[in-house]
Amino acid sequence: MQDHIPTAQDITTAHDRIRKYIHRTPILTNAYINELAGADIYFKCENFQKVGAFKARGGLNTVLSLRNEELNKGVATHSSGNHAQAIALAAKMARTKAYIVMPSSAPAIKKAAVRDYGAQIIECEPTLEARETTLQKVVDDTGAIFIHPYNDYRVIQGQATAAKELIEDVPEKLDAIVTPVGGGGLLSGTALSAHYFSAGTKVFAGEPEGADDAYRSFQSGTLIPQINPKSISDGLLTSLGEKPFEIIKKYVSEIFLVNEEEIIDAMRLVWERMKIIVEPSCATTLAVVLKNKAQFKGKKVGLILTGGNVDLKKLPF
Amino acid sequence: MQDHIPTAQDITTAHDRIRKYIHRTPILTNAYINELAGADIYFKCENFQKVGAFKARGGLNTVLSLRNEELNKGVATHSSGNHAQAIALAAKMARTKAYIVMPSSAPAIKKAAVRDYGAQIIECEPTLEARETTLQKVVDDTGAIFIHPYNDYRVIQGQATAAKELIEDVPEKLDAIVTPVGGGGLLSGTALSAHYFSAGTKVFAGEPEGADDAYRSFQSGTLIPQINPKSISDGLLTSLGEKPFEIIKKYVSEIFLVNEEEIIDAMRLVWERMKIIVEPSCATTLAVVLKNKAQFKGKKVGLILTGGNVDLKKLPF
Repeated sequence: MQDHIPTAQDITTAHDRIRKYIHRTPILTNAYINELAGADIYFKCENFQKVGAFKARGGLNTVLSLRNEELNKGVATHSSGNHAQAIALAAKMARTKAYIVMPSSAPAIKKAAVRDYGAQIIECEPTLEARETTLQKVVDDTGAIFIHPYNDYRVIQGQATAAKELIEDVPEKLDAIVTPVGGGGLLSGTALSAHYFSAGTKVFAGEPEGADDAYRSFQSGTLIPQINPKSISDGLLTSLGEKPFEIIKKYVSEIFLVNEEEIIDAMRLVWERMKIIVEPSCATTLAVVLKNKAQFKGKKVGLILTGGNVDLKKLPF
Repeated sequence: MQDHIPTAQDITTAHDRIRKYIHRTPILTNAYINELAGADIYFKCENFQKVGAFKARGGLNTVLSLRNEELNKGVATHSSGNHAQAIALAAKMARTKAYIVMPSSAPAIKKAAVRDYGAQIIECEPTLEARETTLQKVVDDTGAIFIHPYNDYRVIQGQATAAKELIEDVPEKLDAIVTPVGGGGLLSGTALSAHYFSAGTKVFAGEPEGADDAYRSFQSGTLIPQINPKSISDGLLTSLGEKPFEIIKKYVSEIFLVNEEEIIDAMRLVWERMKIIVEPSCATTLAVVLKNKAQFKGKKVGLILTGGNVDLKKLPF
C-alpha cells in the first residue's frame, strides 16, 4: 500500500495505467450559464465516465495496482453507490471477485449497476458503523482486499487524473477548479494535479450545509467527523478522510457551503440548459460559483461534474 | 424562395452560412447500448444544439438567406416547439422581429424559451387548422415572412447539415443513418446528405405508430395526411410535407414504426446509460434499431438525437 502523498509522477503513472479502461470525458461549455455566472466555465463531464462517475478512476487505479496474490482473493469495499460500481467494474476488468457492502438506502439504480458488473452485494444499515462492521466480516470471511473509497493514496492518484485531463484539454490556463467534497478523494487529487500541472490555478470545493464536516475541518485545521449528515447530495454524506485532509489543508484555497435550494437550482440549470444528467453532488460546484459571483467574475473556472447516477423516479424537480 | 431540391453545393453553402451560429455537436457512443443492439451506434447529439434541437440549423439557414427588405418585416411561423425557438433565435441573430404561433398544448419550457429570445408568441388551439389560420392572420397584419417548419428547401438544406457533420466526424463509413420523421425536414435533408456525401449509406426513419402518416405515405407512394395523431413524441405529430416527401420517396430506404412503450424504453435507456437528456421524438431511432436487430446487426449506424427540450415535470418514467 502506498505510504506517501502522490507525486506528479505517481499521478502520471496512474493515468497511463487506467487510460485504456476509462473514457477521456468531454469538456462542455454553455453560453447561458457563462452569462449567468459572469465567468467562463468548463464542465469536465465525469457523468459520462465509465460507471457514470469519476470514481472509476480511483477504483481502477487501485485494483490494477494490486499484486496477483492479492487480486486472487478478490476485493471488497463499502460505498453508497459510485465507488461500489467503480470497484465492481475494476474487479471485472482484473478478472477477480468483488464484495460490495452497500447501505440499504442506496439508490436502486446503483445497486442494479453493481450487480450487472457481476459483483456480490451485502446490504447493511445506512450508518458508517454498520458499513464498517459488515465490511470487516466480509473481509474476515473471504480474505478479500479492502479498498477504501477515499482514504487511500492510490485512490487519490486515480481521482487526480480527472483534473489532469481538464488541465490538459482546456486550451487556456484555468484560474480555478471547483470540485464537490465528501470523503475528499477527488478534492485532494484535484488539488495535487493543479499544484503539479497548473501552478497558480486555485482549487476550491463546494459542500452541502447539511454535511459540512470538510468546511469545519478546514476552518479549524482539525479533522471533525460528520454526525447525522443530511443533504440531497447522497455522494457527499461521508466524512472527510485523514489522508485527503492532509493534502486539502496544504493545497486547497477555500471550501464554500451551499444550501439544498442552491444545489437543486444549479442541478436544474445543468439539466435544462446543458441537456445532461448530473447528480445533485456535482451541482454543488456550480452552486458555489453562482453564489460567490464576485470571487469568480471574469475568471476561467473548471468544474468537475462528478457523476450522473440519479434515480429518475426521485427527481427533486 | 428556392425552387429546386437542394444540391450538394446548396448544402455546403448552407453549412458555411450557419456554421458560426451553431454548435458542431459531439458524437457519442455507448458500450452498453452497442452490446444490447449488436451494432456500432454513433449518436449525433443535436440535443446539445443551440435551442436544444437540430431545428436551429434550418431556421438559421432560412432567415439568414432572406434579403434585407424581407428581413425588415420580421419573420413568422407556427410550431409546437423547437422550430419556434429556432426562428426566434434566428430572428435575434438577424436583428429582426419574430412572430410565433404556438398551440396552447406546447410544453411550458418551450414557450418560455421562445419568449427569452425576444419573440412574440400568439397562442392557438392545438390543431393544424387553427395554427394555419392564426398564422395567416399574423402575416396579413404584420407583413412578416412566413417560414414553414419543414416544407421549404432552405429549411431542408439547413437540417441536412446535421447528417453532413455526422458523416464527416465518424472516422469510418456509416452503413446506415436513422432519423425520426414528423414533417420530414430532417429526414429528407439527411437522405440528401447521405446521397451526396456518403454514397452507399442507407437512410431509415423511425415513426410512432400513433402518427404513422409518413409510413403510410411511403408505402403507398401518395402523401396521406395525419388525422388525430397521438404519441408522446410531441415533435412528430405534424404531417409529412410535400417537398420532403418528394426527396424521401427517392432517397430513403425504409420507414419503421415503433410503439409508445418502445419509444419510452429507448428514451429511458439513453437517459440512464448515456446521462444525456433527449426528447421522446429522438428515442424513436434507437427504438427502431433495437426492434429490428437483424437488420442492423454488426452495422455502423448513425442516429440523430434531434433534441433535448423536455418538461422535467412531465417525464414518462
